[in-house]
Amino acid sequence: MSKKPLNIGMIGYGFMGRAHSNAYVQVNNFFDLKYRTVLKAACARNAEKAKEFADQWGYESIETDWRKLLERKDIDAVDICVPNNLHCEIALAAAAAGKMILCEKPLALNAAEGRKMVEAVEKAGVANTVWYNYRRIPAVTLAKQLIDEGRLGKIFHYRAKFLQDWTISPELPQGGNGLWRLDAAAAGSGVSGDLLAHCIDTALWLNGRMSSLSALTETFIKERKHNLTGKVQEVTIDDACTFMGKFENGSLANFESTRYARGHKALYTFEINGEKASISWDLHDLHRLQYFDHRDESKIRGWHSIHVTDGDHPYMGKWWVPGLAIGYESSFVHQVADFIEGLSSGKPCSPTFRDAMETQVILDAILDSAKSQQWVNIPKV
Amino acid sequence: MSKKPLNIGMIGYGFMGRAHSNAYVQVNNFFDLKYRTVLKAACARNAEKAKEFADQWGYESIETDWRKLLERKDIDAVDICVPNNLHCEIALAAAAAGKMILCEKPLALNAAEGRKMVEAVEKAGVANTVWYNYRRIPAVTLAKQLIDEGRLGKIFHYRAKFLQDWTISPELPQGGNGLWRLDAAAAGSGVSGDLLAHCIDTALWLNGRMSSLSALTETFIKERKHNLTGKVQEVTIDDACTFMGKFENGSLANFESTRYARGHKALYTFEINGEKASISWDLHDLHRLQYFDHRDESKIRGWHSIHVTDGDHPYMGKWWVPGLAIGYESSFVHQVADFIEGLSSGKPCSPTFRDAMETQVILDAILDSAKSQQWVNIPKV
Amino acid sequence: MSKKPLNIGMIGYGFMGRAHSNAYVQVNNFFDLKYRTVLKAACARNAEKAKEFADQWGYESIETDWRKLLERKDIDAVDICVPNNLHCEIALAAAAAGKMILCEKPLALNAAEGRKMVEAVEKAGVANTVWYNYRRIPAVTLAKQLIDEGRLGKIFHYRAKFLQDWTISPELPQGGNGLWRLDAAAAGSGVSGDLLAHCIDTALWLNGRMSSLSALTETFIKERKHNLTGKVQEVTIDDACTFMGKFENGSLANFESTRYARGHKALYTFEINGEKASISWDLHDLHRLQYFDHRDESKIRGWHSIHVTDGDHPYMGKWWVPGLAIGYESSFVHQVADFIEGLSSGKPCSPTFRDAMETQVILDAILDSAKSQQWVNIPKV
Amino acid sequence: MSKKPLNIGMIGYGFMGRAHSNAYVQVNNFFDLKYRTVLKAACARNAEKAKEFADQWGYESIETDWRKLLERKDIDAVDICVPNNLHCEIALAAAAAGKMILCEKPLALNAAEGRKMVEAVEKAGVANTVWYNYRRIPAVTLAKQLIDEGRLGKIFHYRAKFLQDWTISPELPQGGNGLWRLDAAAAGSGVSGDLLAHCIDTALWLNGRMSSLSALTETFIKERKHNLTGKVQEVTIDDACTFMGKFENGSLANFESTRYARGHKALYTFEINGEKASISWDLHDLHRLQYFDHRDESKIRGWHSIHVTDGDHPYMGKWWVPGLAIGYESSFVHQVADFIEGLSSGKPCSPTFRDAMETQVILDAILDSAKSQQWVNIPKV
Repeated sequence: MSKKPLNIGMIGYGFMGRAHSNAYVQVNNFFDLKYRTVLKAACARNAEKAKEFADQWGYESIETDWRKLLERKDIDAVDICVPNNLHCEIALAAAAAGKMILCEKPLALNAAEGRKMVEAVEKAGVANTVWYNYRRIPAVTLAKQLIDEGRLGKIFHYRAKFLQDWTISPELPQGGNGLWRLDAAAAGSGVSGDLLAHCIDTALWLNGRMSSLSALTETFIKERKHNLTGKVQEVTIDDACTFMGKFENGSLANFESTRYARGHKALYTFEINGEKASISWDLHDLHRLQYFDHRDESKIRGWHSIHVTDGDHPYMGKWWVPGLAIGYESSFVHQVADFIEGLSSGKPCSPTFRDAMETQVILDAILDSAKSQQWVNIPKV
Repeated sequence: MSKKPLNIGMIGYGFMGRAHSNAYVQVNNFFDLKYRTVLKAACARNAEKAKEFADQWGYESIETDWRKLLERKDIDAVDICVPNNLHCEIALAAAAAGKMILCEKPLALNAAEGRKMVEAVEKAGVANTVWYNYRRIPAVTLAKQLIDEGRLGKIFHYRAKFLQDWTISPELPQGGNGLWRLDAAAAGSGVSGDLLAHCIDTALWLNGRMSSLSALTETFIKERKHNLTGKVQEVTIDDACTFMGKFENGSLANFESTRYARGHKALYTFEINGEKASISWDLHDLHRLQYFDHRDESKIRGWHSIHVTDGDHPYMGKWWVPGLAIGYESSFVHQVADFIEGLSSGKPCSPTFRDAMETQVILDAILDSAKSQQWVNIPKV
Repeated sequence: MSKKPLNIGMIGYGFMGRAHSNAYVQVNNFFDLKYRTVLKAACARNAEKAKEFADQWGYESIETDWRKLLERKDIDAVDICVPNNLHCEIALAAAAAGKMILCEKPLALNAAEGRKMVEAVEKAGVANTVWYNYRRIPAVTLAKQLIDEGRLGKIFHYRAKFLQDWTISPELPQGGNGLWRLDAAAAGSGVSGDLLAHCIDTALWLNGRMSSLSALTETFIKERKHNLTGKVQEVTIDDACTFMGKFENGSLANFESTRYARGHKALYTFEINGEKASISWDLHDLHRLQYFDHRDESKIRGWHSIHVTDGDHPYMGKWWVPGLAIGYESSFVHQVADFIEGLSSGKPCSPTFRDAMETQVILDAILDSAKSQQWVNIPKV
Repeated sequence: MSKKPLNIGMIGYGFMGRAHSNAYVQVNNFFDLKYRTVLKAACARNAEKAKEFADQWGYESIETDWRKLLERKDIDAVDICVPNNLHCEIALAAAAAGKMILCEKPLALNAAEGRKMVEAVEKAGVANTVWYNYRRIPAVTLAKQLIDEGRLGKIFHYRAKFLQDWTISPELPQGGNGLWRLDAAAAGSGVSGDLLAHCIDTALWLNGRMSSLSALTETFIKERKHNLTGKVQEVTIDDACTFMGKFENGSLANFESTRYARGHKALYTFEINGEKASISWDLHDLHRLQYFDHRDESKIRGWHSIHVTDGDHPYMGKWWVPGLAIGYESSFVHQVADFIEGLSSGKPCSPTFRDAMETQVILDAILDSAKSQQWVNIPKV
C-alpha cells in the first residue's frame, strides 16, 4: 500500500528551518501515516544559502522568491520559518494560493496581523498549524491528559518561566541575520514573543483562557551596536518580562521570562497546583514529569518523578524502549505526525492559527500593560 | 571561667515558643559564648499550659500575666511568641521595663505599630532582634557571603516563593488558638505577613531595598466556620499573594506565596541571577546551595550543588563533621548565638526592629497595591 | 507528675560523645517519657579535657578513671564513646557493676570480644544498646515500616555504599587522638568497621540475615607518618572495602565503602529492589525517602520523593511542622527516646548487643574473605 | 561538491535495526561528511518483514538471505543486527566478501568466536566497528575528554550499574523472536552480555584494562515457558550479575547488572573517583554529567551538574542550541559520523572488533568466576 506524498515547501533555513526539516525527514520512519512527506523545495532569498540548505537536508529543488514557491503546483504545504514580520504577508498569499500552512510561532507581529491570517486560512479552508512545539513533548502531552482526566481538581495556581542567559553581554550586537530576535521591528517584541509566547500557549492549552493581567518589562541594556550598520542604536525589545494575572477558571497566573538569568540556557518550566494534585515540568530535563497526588496514601505521598518513556506514554510507543529518552526535536516530529493524521481525520492540528491568536492577544495585552502600568482585561479573540 | 547568665522570659508556648526554647537549650552546647542562657520563666495566660510547657522545656518558673514577667528583676530578655496583634503592646512595655527583646516575625500588624516599636527600643537602648530565622540557615548565610564578595556582579533578577498547602480544605476552620493565622485581626494578613515576610526579609538582606511593586492577592475560600464561635464567617486574610517589583539596584522582583500549592509543605525558595553568577536555595533541602558561576571553564560549567556542611561553611564548624546535615531548628540556635555575641561585641543582631521595619513597610505596600490594583512606591522607613 | 531521673555517665568526649550528649539534652524536650535524663558525670583520662567537656554540655561532675565511674551509685547508665579496642573491657566491667550500657558501634574489635560482651550483659540483665543510629533517621525507619508491611514483595537486591573522601591526602597522619580510626589496633579495621558496619546493621534490620559473601579490601596508601611518634609506619587498615553476597531470603548483596571517593563526605546510600516496589535513601539528603511502587497506575508511575517530615512519619510528630527537616543528630535523640521507652515497656532498644553481634560476625567474615580471596559462609551468632 | 555514496546493507529489523537505520538517515543532515549514506538493502529471512521494514525506513531493496546480500556489488557496508549467535558466521563471510562491517554488541557469543572475527576483519583489511553506542552520548564523551586531560588524577574507584526491571514477571516467556535475549544459546549469556557489556566497554575506554575479577550471577526465575514450543524449560541465562575487580591502574571495580531492579528501565550509571576529581553519569538523564573538582574553592565546592548541550560540548555544535537535549538515538548518529570520518582520515572508529574483544574476554571471565566461585585473572586479548 503506497502512501500519498505530502510535498513540502520550506521558506527559511535557520534554526527552525532545520528543526522542521528534521521532523519531515523522521516522521514516516516512526509513525504509520497515510501521507509520506517529500522535501520538495527549499526557499531563501540567497540562492547559495538555499542550495546549501537543500543539499544538506535533501530538498529536491530551491526557490529564491517565496511567491514563486507559492505558484508551484507540486507544493502541497508551505512552512513559514522566517522572521515574525514576514509571517503575515506570506501566510495571506499562501492561503490565497490554497496551500496548507505550517507557520513558526508567534503567529504574527501582533493581534491585528494575526486576525487577518486567521481569516485568510479559514476563508481558504486550508489546513494550518502554528509551531508551538512544546505541546508535543511527551511529558507535556501527558500533563494535558492528566488534567483532562480531572485529576488535579479545581486549579489554584499556574506558574511558568522561560529563562535564558544568552544576551547578558553588552558586546552582543543586535540586528540582522541570526540577531533579528533583538530587533522589535522584525520580532515584534523581545522575550515576550519569543519565550513567554511558548509559556502562554501551553498554559491556555492546559488551563484555559486568561481574563486579566498586569505586566512588567525591562530592557537592561539600552543600546547595542547593530551588526550590519555598525551603529550603536537603542534596543527596542524587552529583555525581561514578568506578569501576573487571572485565568477564567479562577486560578492565578505568575509568568516570567528573561534572557538575563545566568545559568539557564532554555529553562522553560511550568507548575500547576490543583486541589487534588499538582504537576510540574522543566524543559532542561524534558522527559520527566513531576506529579504529586494528594490521594496517595499519606505515608508514601511524594512527588512522582515520572520518566515519560514508557510505551503507554504519549507518542513514546513509536520510538525506542522504556527508559530511553528522546530529544527536543521529537516535539516537531510529533506535530507533523498529528498534522498528517489531521489531513485524514479532519481534526485540525492544534494550535491552529485561530488557537494561536489567543496567545497573540495576550502578548498585545502584556505590552500594553507594561507601558501603561495598569491591569488590562484580555479581549476575546 | 564561669559565664554570665542570660535569663530568658518566654511569652507564648506554641510552635515558635518551642523552636526558640530549643535554641536557648542548645546554643551553649555548640557555641563558646560569654553568656549562658537560663530558661527563667515561661509565661502564658493559662497557668496549666504554662506549667506544662515549663516542665517540658525546663523553665524554672511560670507567669500568667506578661506584665508581671516584665516586672521581674531576674529576667534579662523577653521573647515575644504570641499572635502578631500583641507584639506591639508587649514590646513597648518590655522596652520601657529595660528588657532585651527577641520578637517573633512579622514585627507588627502594620508599619504604624512597627514604627512605635522601633522608637521604643531605640529610646530604651535595649538589645532587640526579630526572628527572621532563615537568614541563619547556613546555606542562606553562605549566599549572603558570596553576594557580599561581589561574585554575582550586577543583579538582574530576584525571585522568591513560599508555597504551602495546609489550608486547601474548606472544612478547615478559622479562628482562635492555633488557627489565628487565618484571622486578619490577629495576624494582620494571611500569607503575605506569614510567608512572604520571610521572603522579603531575606531579599532585603541579600539584594537591598525595593522601590516599587504591584501586587495581587486572592482569597480562594471566602467563608469558613470559626473554631470557637462555630459561626460561618467571612475569611479576612489573603490565601495567596503574588507581586512583581523593582529593587533599588535595578533588578526585578517576582515573589509569590500561597497556602494552596498542593504538594508543598514549606517550599521557601529563592533565586538570584547576576551578571556573573546565580544562586538558588530551597528550604525543603535546606543544607544545599545551588551556585552557578559563568567564570567556570566552559566545559565543566554547571550548577554546583553545594552541600553546606563543611567546617568552613557558616556556623557548620560548630556542629558535626562534613557531610552531616543539621535541621531547621539550627537557624534559631544561630540567631541566639549571634544575639549573645552582639551583647559582647556591641554589634546588633540583625534583623533588629529597625531592619524588620523595611519588611513591614513592604507588607503594607503589598496590601495597598492589591486593593488599589495600582503600582505603589515603597516609602523609606 | 515528676519523672524518674536516668543518670548518665559518659565515657569519652569526641565526636560521638558530643552527639550522644546532645541526645540526652534534647530528648525530654521533645518526647514524653517516664524518665528524665540527667548528665551526671563525664569521664576522660585527662582531667582538663573532662572538665571542659562537662562544662560545655552541663555534666554535673567528672571522673578520670572509668572504673571509678562504674563504682558510683548515682550512675544508672554508662555510655561508651571511646576507641573500639576499649569497648569490651569497659562493657564487661559495667555489666558486672549492674549499669545499663549504651555502647558506640561497632560493638567490639571482633566477634570473639563481642561474644563476651553479649554474654556479660545478658547474664547481668542490664539494658543495653549499640549506637547504630541510622536505624532511627525517620526516612530509614519509614523504610522499615514499608518493608514490614510487605509492600516490596520478594526481595531481589540490596545494595549499599558508604563513601567518604577524607583520607585521600598522603600527608594525613595516622595514629592517636582523633586519628585512631586509621589504626587497626585501636579500630579493629578501617572502613569496614567504621562505615560498612552501619550499612550492614541497617541491611540486617531491613532485609534479614546474610548467608555468604566474597570481599575485596584495598589499602591505597601503604605508609603514613604516625602523628604521635613521627615515624613513617605501615598503614594497617583497609582504605576501601567492597563485597558481594547473598541474604538468606535469596536476595543479592552489593556493598561498598571507601574513604577515597572524592566529592562524598558521608554518602551512605542504600537501595532495595523488591518484586513489587523499591526503596532508596541517601544520608546526604537524609529526610527524603525514594519509593517506587509498581502497583501505581502506569501513567503516573515514578519514584515518589517522600519528604519525610509529616506528622504521621516516624518520630516526626514530635518535632516541628510538615516540611521542616531535622538533622543528623535527631537519630541519636530517637534512640535515647526508644531506650527509655524500653525501660518502661520491657522492649529492648534495638540493636542490642546481641543484635549488633550479627554485624560483628559479618565484619570478621569480610576480613577473612578479603585475605583468603575466597567466598565464606557467615556463621550464626 | 557531491558526496560519495556509502551503500548500507542492513541485516535484521528489530530494535537495533531501527536505531541504526535512523542513524543512517539522520547523519548527513547534521554532520558534514565526505560520504552520504544510502539505505541500499534490508535483509531478513521473512520477505514480508523485510519489505515492511524497507518501506518504513526507505531501503531501496530487500534480500532474504544474507549471503546474497554479501554477494551484491552495490553494498559497501553491512550492519549486523541479528542475535549474537549469528554474528560470527556473518562477520567472517562479510570480511571475506570485503565488506565494511558495523556489528551490534556484544561482538560474539564468546571470546573464541570473537578472536576469529578480529582475525577475519584484520586480514581482510575492512573497516569495522561494534555498536557500543554509549561512548558517544555527548556527556560520556565529555567524561572521556576530562579524564584524558588528567583532571581526575590517580583513579581509586570505578563503579557501574545497569539496572532494568522487565523480566520480573514469571509469566514472561523465554524463546524466539524478541525474546532471544532470555535464551543463552542465542544470546551467549543474560544480563552480563546484554547490559554489563556496555558498562565494561565504557569502563575500558575511560579507565583502561582490568586485571582480575570475582563474579556472582543469579537466575531468580529458574523455569519459564518457551514462547514458540509452549514447553516449560530451564532458564539458561543470568538474570543478575555483580562483580568486583581490579583495573591495571590500581583502581577498584564494582559492577552490577540485573533485570530485577523494580523502578529502573535502563538505569546505566557509572561513577569514577579520582584523587582530584570525580565524575558520574546516568542514562536516564543522559545529557547531564556530574563533575566534582576538589580544586574548586572550598566555599563553592560541590558537584557541577553539567547540562551537556553547549556548542563546545562533544557533538553538540551539530545539533540545536544550548539547553536543548538530544535523545538516546543520537549516540548511533555520532558513531556513524565517526565511522565515516574514519573512512577519510584512516582513523578506525572505536571500538573496533579488536577493541571489543577486551570486553568479550571479561565476559568470559565473569561467567568462569561465577561458576567456579574463584577470582580469575583476565587474560590479554
